[in-house]
Amino acid sequence: MALAYDPLFITSDKSPIDIASPPPPPSSMILTQDELKRIAAYKAVDFVKSGMVLGLGTGSTARHAVDRIGELLRQGKLENIVGIPTSEKTEEQALSLGIPLSDLDAHPVVDLSIDGADEVDPYLNLVKGRGGSLLREKMIEGASKEFVVIVDESKMVRHIGGSRMALPVEIVPFCWRFTAGKLREVMEGYGGCEAKLRLGGEKGEAFVTDNGNYIVDMYLEKDMGDLRSVSDEILRLPGVVEHGMFLDMASTVIIAGELGVRIKNKHSSCC
Amino acid sequence: MALAYDPLFITSDKSPIDIASPPPPPSSMILTQDELKRIAAYKAVDFVKSGMVLGLGTGSTARHAVDRIGELLRQGKLENIVGIPTSEKTEEQALSLGIPLSDLDAHPVVDLSIDGADEVDPYLNLVKGRGGSLLREKMIEGASKEFVVIVDESKMVRHIGGSRMALPVEIVPFCWRFTAGKLREVMEGYGGCEAKLRLGGEKGEAFVTDNGNYIVDMYLEKDMGDLRSVSDEILRLPGVVEHGMFLDMASTVIIAGELGVRIKNKHSSCC
Repeated sequence: MALAYDPLFITSDKSPIDIASPPPPPSSMILTQDELKRIAAYKAVDFVKSGMVLGLGTGSTARHAVDRIGELLRQGKLENIVGIPTSEKTEEQALSLGIPLSDLDAHPVVDLSIDGADEVDPYLNLVKGRGGSLLREKMIEGASKEFVVIVDESKMVRHIGGSRMALPVEIVPFCWRFTAGKLREVMEGYGGCEAKLRLGGEKGEAFVTDNGNYIVDMYLEKDMGDLRSVSDEILRLPGVVEHGMFLDMASTVIIAGELGVRIKNKHSSCC
Repeated sequence: MALAYDPLFITSDKSPIDIASPPPPPSSMILTQDELKRIAAYKAVDFVKSGMVLGLGTGSTARHAVDRIGELLRQGKLENIVGIPTSEKTEEQALSLGIPLSDLDAHPVVDLSIDGADEVDPYLNLVKGRGGSLLREKMIEGASKEFVVIVDESKMVRHIGGSRMALPVEIVPFCWRFTAGKLREVMEGYGGCEAKLRLGGEKGEAFVTDNGNYIVDMYLEKDMGDLRSVSDEILRLPGVVEHGMFLDMASTVIIAGELGVRIKNKHSSCC
């Protein structure tokens, strides 16, 4: 594991600072999680070149990247970008920033996607979808030549499920209790899980995805072991539309932490 | 392959006839496809016992079975049936016949399902979904202890796709062209296919399933070979919700043909 030098990251008073006002904080300052997210996001945008078709992620970290892309377009430092938003929320944000948008039907090959993740394991397998956009994200990021993931260091786990947060599964609303029960049955073979319908409405009703589906959040008990096998078993359940494991998809992960920015690539050593 | 004797099937003037008026036609009469469907459907309903939770299929053949169940309930020959309809259309039909209904959430285990199929191969693998209800059918029939399939002999094929009719795939509407393209790519490894969006509306718009999704109909070029492998590859595509191959699910297939009714069971010889 190497610490990469990063001009955006404030490690000492002598570091070059690329951030506009306010002036650099003292080196002893502890950065907030949101500041770390922004640092990783800005670093990822360094990979963007004029003329690219870009997958625009969803969530609190990706939001910073989209903001930054809009800023560089406005400044004329980037040109001829086409954005493919991974959610209606990101679409709104990108439109408000003046980023030209298209979709996968018109651009079935994406040059680069940038998005956050909820968990990253040592092999760069991800959990995504706590924000609810896992299906569109998986379509767009799966169609990308390069997929750069941006996280703060709290998202790094030893194994999928290691954060004790949810692994989301998008399911059809029809008989969702039945499908949640089937998910629990499948997971018995992989260490077990609690499976809960995600709620999101003001009146306690189910959260509904951009595709009109529900999300069941699986809280895993243990390391699942063979992730490909779990993935296939989940996808074989008829009520399941997609799950939040992104296996072997990330090409680069940018991790912002108190000690600096680390960059891990798909083909570098795993730990 | 054995021809089973069937009291409902008119093979000669001496056969016992269980059909009400009109009087039996002469033995030389050729039965229509719809009459064959009705014969298979009535035979399947012989498997139904009072007190059962029943999966009620969708389509022109299953419709006869649902009618027959309603008739037997009305006559008091069946009691305490709970029907689980596989589509909104079947729900309407069953309600109009006074069949008590429930769903998989309340009855996660179904005693017996009866449904038609678009193709049946020698191993009792099926293609279903030309009627558009493949997802709910797969959920309900997959939850059934016994699944009796009713077809006329035109549905028997040497291999899935052998009828040159479609293998349907339910996909999310979001970027459906992209997903159809990915399906074509996957199928290149299995003999190739044409993939067309199913249209259904008066104005030539896309057909929409009960779950709010689209259907892509795949017209296969050849025998696909390893069906489990095709199935998993299709299900791994993020925009795919479900496909119309029902592998290793049917316990019994009832086939009505000009020569009588054949019954094939899962564990009997394959051809």
